[in-house]
Amino acid sequence: MPFVDLEVPTMTTPTPAATPARPRVLTGDRPTGALHLGHLAGSLQNRVRLQDEAELFVLLADVQALTDHFDRPEQVRENVLAVALDYLAAGLDPQKTTCVVQSAVPELAELTVYFLNLVTVSHLRQNPTVKAEIAQKGYGERVPAGFFVYPVSQAADIAAFGATLVPVGDDQLPMLEQTREIVRRFNALYAPVLAEPQAQLSRVPRLPGLDGQAKMSKSLGNAIALGDSADEVARKVMGMYTDPGHLRASDPGRVEGNPVFTFLDAFDPDPARVQALKDQYRAGGLGDVKVKKHLIDVLNGVLAPIRTRRAEYERDPDAVLRFVTEGTARGREVAAQTLGQVRRAMRLFGH
Amino acid sequence: MPFVDLEVPTMTTPTPAATPARPRVLTGDRPTGALHLGHLAGSLQNRVRLQDEAELFVLLADVQALTDHFDRPEQVRENVLAVALDYLAAGLDPQKTTCVVQSAVPELAELTVYFLNLVTVSHLRQNPTVKAEIAQKGYGERVPAGFFVYPVSQAADIAAFGATLVPVGDDQLPMLEQTREIVRRFNALYAPVLAEPQAQLSRVPRLPGLDGQAKMSKSLGNAIALGDSADEVARKVMGMYTDPGHLRASDPGRVEGNPVFTFLDAFDPDPARVQALKDQYRAGGLGDVKVKKHLIDVLNGVLAPIRTRRAEYERDPDAVLRFVTEGTARGREVAAQTLGQVRRAMRLFGH
Repeated sequence: MPFVDLEVPTMTTPTPAATPARPRVLTGDRPTGALHLGHLAGSLQNRVRLQDEAELFVLLADVQALTDHFDRPEQVRENVLAVALDYLAAGLDPQKTTCVVQSAVPELAELTVYFLNLVTVSHLRQNPTVKAEIAQKGYGERVPAGFFVYPVSQAADIAAFGATLVPVGDDQLPMLEQTREIVRRFNALYAPVLAEPQAQLSRVPRLPGLDGQAKMSKSLGNAIALGDSADEVARKVMGMYTDPGHLRASDPGRVEGNPVFTFLDAFDPDPARVQALKDQYRAGGLGDVKVKKHLIDVLNGVLAPIRTRRAEYERDPDAVLRFVTEGTARGREVAAQTLGQVRRAMRLFGH
Repeated sequence: MPFVDLEVPTMTTPTPAATPARPRVLTGDRPTGALHLGHLAGSLQNRVRLQDEAELFVLLADVQALTDHFDRPEQVRENVLAVALDYLAAGLDPQKTTCVVQSAVPELAELTVYFLNLVTVSHLRQNPTVKAEIAQKGYGERVPAGFFVYPVSQAADIAAFGATLVPVGDDQLPMLEQTREIVRRFNALYAPVLAEPQAQLSRVPRLPGLDGQAKMSKSLGNAIALGDSADEVARKVMGMYTDPGHLRASDPGRVEGNPVFTFLDAFDPDPARVQALKDQYRAGGLGDVKVKKHLIDVLNGVLAPIRTRRAEYERDPDAVLRFVTEGTARGREVAAQTLGQVRRAMRLFGH
């Protein structure tokens, strides 16, 4: 899996499930739409591997989704189970992975409120990730306060679940550093009860959209959803952006910035074959239709087991619900335990 | 009680305790120090009256206290019971008043997080009360985010307890207007489940300090605490600032800006007598020592029943604890009920 080049900490000895030495990982998604190939390459494949190596918590971050979807609560609600189904289809195993609905763990909001005291407005304003998102959404100063402070809410999620390892992309590193600063500040001010998480840095470049745009996104209409049928995948790939200068099969073509090849890099299990196709494309003599047909085969190869699992879970919706409710119960237990320590550390009345 | 000129809604007919027509009032204090005469004149006397006319909730706002005392958690914790004792001593009746510890109602933090989405950073920045406090504390841009957003947390307190009436001074009107805006926005976006509170506007000017400073405050060292002994009161009053131009008893003196007279206006039950003293002071022939001795009598007259109740409750600390724990249990019940409606209105998963 060369596309997803992650620094997974080496497990020197096999450790049983309950050993605390096993890292606890927190990751998750805002349930605002169906998951797509960008999620698969960028995080889901890594999570499927992590669930065997770590204690994996996956957060259905509906409260965070509301920070910029507060006026679309139905969309968020509907996507909680839709994303949970995507998780199961992608290979997350209910026996290994704890799937938690954020809004059902009010301890996260409580810790957010305490953490808000430990970070300044100017510091939040400097967060490059949030800065870029505020610019992209055109919020300016009219940014909802909830969105502005969401790094604090993320810090609370990570700390409440006692995560020691958080998979992040380069662009999210400042976000995790913010969490580490808040945790250090809390531990220094009150008592050292919170775990300081480490980043599991992903070197995966973001999967581009079908249109060659930097980011695959459902709302941009340039995504292949994990739930798309084989026919939809074929139709979407045949319409993909390629090298606009590559008019005839015999012309030499550009591989760089050509999403067809980026997709092959991400998903073709045979890198040597991808290299050979790239060489031929660059030299001329390889038509777009031919490469695209290969990509369709590759993608449907990757998506076939995902479709099979999705069909199974669609026949058993109670299993999806159990995945979410049992995970949430376990998550709440962990968060409640952390908050007990937090309240004592903060010398709150009655604790 | 001419000093506390409040617009209490007229009760046309006596209403039994459980009638919803009775307004529910939320008021409270940040437990950061002992309550003093400023609190008595500015709010406590009003609350003692309100507990007979309304369903009175008094919030020991320890979470809010931490927004600017996050590095002094012991001070906040210690003052929770100290302020509760001040309440009882001042005449709040556990049978009539619900005293709630904020940190023990995590529903308030949860609602705060939801409310943060309904207000923009620029709007919070324009809040004149917070603006003034940020300037006064010298925070600038380095204001803790928790302090910056505390009007949102107050809005959550008011809405969670379903308060319909909130006693405020002129300077706090923008704060309550912020609450009303958030409540209206919530009700319009989701479902009309939250009560829009009305202001009970206090026309009481703030009680000055013993030194003539605009504000009596424990931290400024210019306060008479409700718990001060008769001797302490005498000593403090004898050291009070008066008209610096009033050197001899025979000199004409200034009444305006003279805290001795402001205190008499606030606490002397006989306004005609105060008027006579003012006239004599202005004309010349009334010495400061004589007026101060009268003020000592007046204050000790006001404080005597408070001292008696304090002594009783000091002998029965369990009663103070019951006041707080029973009130908190009742407060949590109300807030939990509101949050149930809030979660359904927001279409949160599982509700």
